[in-house]
Amino acid sequence: MGAGTYQRVDTTTVKKICIIGAGNVATHLARALDRENEVVQIYSQTPTHAYELSNALGKPDIATDNLNEITRDADIYIVSVRDDIIPQIVSITPDNGIWAHTSGSVPMDVFKGHKTRHGVFYPLQTFSKQTELDVSKIPFFIEGNSQATYNTLYKLANSISDTVEPADSNRRKTLHIAAVFACNFVNYMWTEADELLRQDGLNISYLRPLLEETLNKISSVRPCDAQTGPARRGDTSIINEHLSQLDGESKEIYNLLSNLIMNRYQR
Amino acid sequence: MGAGTYQRVDTTTVKKICIIGAGNVATHLARALDRENEVVQIYSQTPTHAYELSNALGKPDIATDNLNEITRDADIYIVSVRDDIIPQIVSITPDNGIWAHTSGSVPMDVFKGHKTRHGVFYPLQTFSKQTELDVSKIPFFIEGNSQATYNTLYKLANSISDTVEPADSNRRKTLHIAAVFACNFVNYMWTEADELLRQDGLNISYLRPLLEETLNKISSVRPCDAQTGPARRGDTSIINEHLSQLDGESKEIYNLLSNLIMNRYQR
Repeated sequence: MGAGTYQRVDTTTVKKICIIGAGNVATHLARALDRENEVVQIYSQTPTHAYELSNALGKPDIATDNLNEITRDADIYIVSVRDDIIPQIVSITPDNGIWAHTSGSVPMDVFKGHKTRHGVFYPLQTFSKQTELDVSKIPFFIEGNSQATYNTLYKLANSISDTVEPADSNRRKTLHIAAVFACNFVNYMWTEADELLRQDGLNISYLRPLLEETLNKISSVRPCDAQTGPARRGDTSIINEHLSQLDGESKEIYNLLSNLIMNRYQR
Repeated sequence: MGAGTYQRVDTTTVKKICIIGAGNVATHLARALDRENEVVQIYSQTPTHAYELSNALGKPDIATDNLNEITRDADIYIVSVRDDIIPQIVSITPDNGIWAHTSGSVPMDVFKGHKTRHGVFYPLQTFSKQTELDVSKIPFFIEGNSQATYNTLYKLANSISDTVEPADSNRRKTLHIAAVFACNFVNYMWTEADELLRQDGLNISYLRPLLEETLNKISSVRPCDAQTGPARRGDTSIINEHLSQLDGESKEIYNLLSNLIMNRYQR
């Protein structure tokens, strides 16, 4: 389903939704979806998790921990469980309604041969149960095995989020790799900074205003145009001074990244 | 001047301040300092810059572009100019009051032999003239060549900021290196992510909620405890899949950082 092929469907019916999973993603999605649509069932293999989430929706009786009890009466089934459990769940549940998983890594084909209408309903965010999140700000990436299925899932995502985009499995993979750079590797840079500062009785919290400003900057400027620092300026005397203060892995990282930045900007 | 040696001085006199420089840092400092103290002069080698800043303070007549006109009547002289110009300015101006520069990289000794009372007044933030900044949230790092000088500069910083810390030249260097990791290298990770996404018709803005949440996390958790991602989990099949999608410098970065993260967490 390419960008631009989406056409808004004009059915305004409230959808009945079955949520399979009661973890972080399932919890935030269930709460958001239950506003304009109707969550009719929550499944978790851990009974207390299913009941906790059902209770949070004010519907304690819609919880189940038995896959044989999965309703045949929902319009949409959202599978939000650990990646490696998806195939098993898909293979032993009824083929009713539209089935979609919420994983960034699992191909849509996991449903093939088991569910006639299927797709992916992927929210690009890191979730934890405690943190309140504004779901409307989370981008959703949608895939469907037919235009109609895609449209229904798009509409569902659009009922809870301002940003909905099509993404086939390749695009989801790109998003995942980009997130590794932009979040996982970024966090590792902060770990390096924090540990350097702690050797001097400081810590990363002193850099916080600087980190916030660095993030603010890229809301109006492309990151490649926002680059600053000694390597951006080609200031080799500062770079060498810094390298002489570092050792081990921090020196290795500093050296590689400074060289890459200098190569890019000093051509 | 070590941490903990500071004692609050009980002089409540308003200080007369001469600001040497009219760039980004000078502009934000002058505005903030002129509230509880009195900026009596603004020098810039570019006349329009000096007048612009003086005007912004409502005092058009305190601007000068002539170093021979630097007042002998200020209590504190804040030198906020490009690092390489500091020595020249220091050598040809009067030895009155306390002199301090705002640079993260220049040793305090740059004043030695020229100014009897001197120090460093270093705000750890990235400044641009357009962006409004809450100066009270910016950490200031202070050094002084005597306890009395340190105290006066500390008090001045404390009049505009909630966070003031002692930092000798070594500590400032550590802060600078940490900022290179936490800001410059982080921005470079965002550049890599942005460019990967653009190949697929997306861009870094789709990751923004994720970036904000990643930054939020480290306000309550140390970065080393906030690490997530394939390398943190030791998920080599995802890592290899990602590496097969990448080439050139993005592959090199992905490979190095994934190995370092795996080494740290999978021991």
